[in-house]
Amino acid sequence: MKIVIAPDSFKGSLTAAEAAQAIERGIRNAFPEADTVLVPMADGGEGSLEPIVRSAGGTFVTHTVRDPFGSPVDAAYGLLADGTTAVVEMARASGLLLVPAPLRNPGLTSTYGTGELIRHALDKGCRRFIVALGGSATNDGGAGMLEALGMAFYDASGCVIHPSGGNLEQIARIDDAAFDPRIAESDFLLACDVNNPLIGVHGATAVYAPQKGAAPSNIEHLERNMRHWADLVESKTNLRLHDYPGAGAAGGLAGAFLAFFPSRLRPGIEVVIDAAGLRRHLSGADLAITGEGSLDAQTASGKAPLGVAREAQSLGIPVIALAGAVRPDLRALYEGGINCAFSIVNTPMTLDEAITRAAELLEHAAEQAVRAFGAGR
Amino acid sequence: MKIVIAPDSFKGSLTAAEAAQAIERGIRNAFPEADTVLVPMADGGEGSLEPIVRSAGGTFVTHTVRDPFGSPVDAAYGLLADGTTAVVEMARASGLLLVPAPLRNPGLTSTYGTGELIRHALDKGCRRFIVALGGSATNDGGAGMLEALGMAFYDASGCVIHPSGGNLEQIARIDDAAFDPRIAESDFLLACDVNNPLIGVHGATAVYAPQKGAAPSNIEHLERNMRHWADLVESKTNLRLHDYPGAGAAGGLAGAFLAFFPSRLRPGIEVVIDAAGLRRHLSGADLAITGEGSLDAQTASGKAPLGVAREAQSLGIPVIALAGAVRPDLRALYEGGINCAFSIVNTPMTLDEAITRAAELLEHAAEQAVRAFGAGR
Repeated sequence: MKIVIAPDSFKGSLTAAEAAQAIERGIRNAFPEADTVLVPMADGGEGSLEPIVRSAGGTFVTHTVRDPFGSPVDAAYGLLADGTTAVVEMARASGLLLVPAPLRNPGLTSTYGTGELIRHALDKGCRRFIVALGGSATNDGGAGMLEALGMAFYDASGCVIHPSGGNLEQIARIDDAAFDPRIAESDFLLACDVNNPLIGVHGATAVYAPQKGAAPSNIEHLERNMRHWADLVESKTNLRLHDYPGAGAAGGLAGAFLAFFPSRLRPGIEVVIDAAGLRRHLSGADLAITGEGSLDAQTASGKAPLGVAREAQSLGIPVIALAGAVRPDLRALYEGGINCAFSIVNTPMTLDEAITRAAELLEHAAEQAVRAFGAGR
Repeated sequence: MKIVIAPDSFKGSLTAAEAAQAIERGIRNAFPEADTVLVPMADGGEGSLEPIVRSAGGTFVTHTVRDPFGSPVDAAYGLLADGTTAVVEMARASGLLLVPAPLRNPGLTSTYGTGELIRHALDKGCRRFIVALGGSATNDGGAGMLEALGMAFYDASGCVIHPSGGNLEQIARIDDAAFDPRIAESDFLLACDVNNPLIGVHGATAVYAPQKGAAPSNIEHLERNMRHWADLVESKTNLRLHDYPGAGAAGGLAGAFLAFFPSRLRPGIEVVIDAAGLRRHLSGADLAITGEGSLDAQTASGKAPLGVAREAQSLGIPVIALAGAVRPDLRALYEGGINCAFSIVNTPMTLDEAITRAAELLEHAAEQAVRAFGAGR
């Protein structure tokens, strides 16, 4: 019996790899001879680097770059087995979790470090990039990343501007003379699950800046900066990011890719599934097991378990989902290819206990689930 | 697909019949065409009447009898489809739950009402009796039941004694001249899971009288009464109940059956399984589903789910167990024929919530479990 184990992380308790290992232990308790394949999953946002690299087969490279405030931070990216594909999770260099909560301020932060990671990977020979966009601390429209890759910004008096979310409106001129020429030879696949444009009530600033630490009184200023940036980009590239769906992802970082890089946006889970080679792993499997912290309506709208199930369903492989919390009314999951879903909770307990004991509970739930599956064979 | 649904009650939330119905709803959600057979279970103790009668196919008869203190109470017993078998749950007439907690006193209570139920069933033509012994309020050695069936008791001066736990030592003579002669033509199967003898440190009084409301200071007096009663019975019948395993069940009621009735003791779950016709129901089934409030070591030592599993296993039918709480380390259950066990709890929650929402949660868990089973087919 071949079983593919492809869970997302259980947020707050288990990484995807840890979850996959716990599920594997449970399967082995029931069927010691089972042929198990671990394909940890992610949704393409923050936390996607590790599952992609583990599932695809690759190595981690750590490079010291500027964090959102310009301090040095050791940030990892992935180098896949083909030797030419890099996996860059922007949050590793420019993520909100790198900034202590009281200091968070998207007016002052920059995506410079993300650009440094890309440059390092270019130096290593990478020309194919998978970029996970979630979890940013920034609202700089990606100008910081561009700066790290050679783009120069000047104010009206010709002084150099080091861009951040709060000074974009000082930029009068963009000089791309030193912009890294290897970028034009590369391909950038952006894992992106949001449709927010760069500007306006659904734009990057209005929707996401508050959760990145912007004071309400500062939103208007940040929006004015971003609008100025969008105007500049439009005059430079003829691409109008103002209303471009998805351009607002990661504080507008997506927009910079779209305007200046050979790039395309794709739903995160599809990017992960392709990069992980899930379809290849599923070949010949009798069962797939997926899961995440909470299975609910949000899951149905395109998180990892449903992505896994869609692939498995297309191959006629049944899917069992395991989760900390399973919300009733799973019809959308059934339609998406999930045969059944079990909670790891095996007795009344608090959320804290479920989180603390997640690995053991997941192992137990996996054992019971495959036993039920096995009983039907 | 034929599925036999044979849960015990979920104590504090669902009767066995309610549990079976909830499981059936869950199965129908997954497989509307499934052939479901509801066989609610019990362990042979208190609460066994209803599941046995429902599963075996029978009717309920209600008769007004004396409660443990002699007040009238409407007590049901069961009349099975063969027209000759009665199911008597002693707790319906003589149970602890019939007495408000502050009034409980095994020195004053009598099993008279249980005798009245038997007499009524004899009048209806019953000659086969299944007797559930658990949950008694009494410690009268079954003398009250004997009185209701015509046995007479006298003190040394020839006055009639109406026996209760506290006056047994006044009995000097037993007169069985008017003892119902139909009893000798009948067969009494006693569902009994305890090995307590009538007398001594493991006897009925020492072990059970305290939980029936006996004050610590009264235990010695009750034990002296019971010993006198055991001596009387021995001199009358030559049967020595003092050390007889099981004679102490239901405040010694079991001893009275053993001494004066054609009767035998049998583990409760076996009695229920036979009476319910479980083996017949299981014939041709693809799956059996059982369950109870809590699946743990006690379950393994002979409660309903394991009894169901043993029967199913002997017929090669897989078994899924559902419970409010599933304790890890289910090896004893696996060995007993339970393939897998799922908790009905599908998210962190309190015990109160699990109890309140038990029907809905059980339905959901059953649906998921049979979906996993079905995925394997």
